[in-house]
Amino acid sequence: MPRISDSRRRMVTAAARLFRAQGYPATGWRQVVTESAAPWGSQAHHFPGGKEQLGVEALSWAATGFERAIRTVFAGVHPAVAVHRWVHAAAAELATSNWRDGCPVATVTLETAHSSDALRTACAEALGSWRAALADALGARGLPEAQARSLATLVLAGIEGALILARAERSAGPLEDVGHELAAVLRARIPD
Amino acid sequence: MPRISDSRRRMVTAAARLFRAQGYPATGWRQVVTESAAPWGSQAHHFPGGKEQLGVEALSWAATGFERAIRTVFAGVHPAVAVHRWVHAAAAELATSNWRDGCPVATVTLETAHSSDALRTACAEALGSWRAALADALGARGLPEAQARSLATLVLAGIEGALILARAERSAGPLEDVGHELAAVLRARIPD
Repeated sequence: MPRISDSRRRMVTAAARLFRAQGYPATGWRQVVTESAAPWGSQAHHFPGGKEQLGVEALSWAATGFERAIRTVFAGVHPAVAVHRWVHAAAAELATSNWRDGCPVATVTLETAHSSDALRTACAEALGSWRAALADALGARGLPEAQARSLATLVLAGIEGALILARAERSAGPLEDVGHELAAVLRARIPD
Repeated sequence: MPRISDSRRRMVTAAARLFRAQGYPATGWRQVVTESAAPWGSQAHHFPGGKEQLGVEALSWAATGFERAIRTVFAGVHPAVAVHRWVHAAAAELATSNWRDGCPVATVTLETAHSSDALRTACAEALGSWRAALADALGARGLPEAQARSLATLVLAGIEGALILARAERSAGPLEDVGHELAAVLRARIPD
């Protein structure tokens, strides 16, 4: 494996951070290079595939971290409890960032699904890995596989949608409502 | 009321259409003017507030049409039936447009919530009007107001989230799963 330089890594994480607030088209090399304190010009060396390559790596980096977070929050507690913790953490992170920092994958999906197969595929892989983590957690509580997968889709879609509403309204209300409703559904379907 | 010229109206609808596929930053005046067959230069006359003014009007135009569609689809049928019809229509529209045409408001919210209060407010008003239409429909079936509003938030968030997953995967599957789950929740909470 080649040694990955610090400035390369910083560019990937800076891009992921910028995608959360403003998406892909609005994120330019100038801003990525400035925010990652990398030398101007190094981007061409590190990302010969251009901004699309950076985008795919940033999405993949963000996806891995978030999949780990889902598996951690659902481990050892009822899924209803995990959903409450998740929406509270998401609401706190949004409020702390002045309602900037949502989901990088959702934004880039909606912007680029029609124009870049590489970015769309990276988004699909990210969302697929989160749904699989959720389905595993529901399956571990005894839900049959097809039901676990379908309910996991509702949980992920509901929270992604709530993040849209919360950012538009600058309010934790939609995340709290959706967390409350999803928890009720999970309590009704999965015994303690 | 001033008479609104055809080219002005076409620019608003072209912008709304472009936002569905590619969002706000990627949509430039050149493309709006070309797609609306308006004379180059007329945009400055029609929209002295610039692209942000066009954006607000396009979002507001799309919001009004969609609120009407929600009220129509929920009128006179059980909300579970309405949700099924909604997700089937959304899935058909996505597939027909080669998975391009999602929700213009969701995309613009995620891109611009941090940078334009005018666009964010237009998005919040759009989403708020859709949630109110859904809450009215649930309230009309006897659900108390607070419950109707909370459940309406889950329905809207779930479908917005499913549209993200569907576009990433180029598949109607997520919309079908979310429609199925939401219908089950609505059947359990609202008598026939």
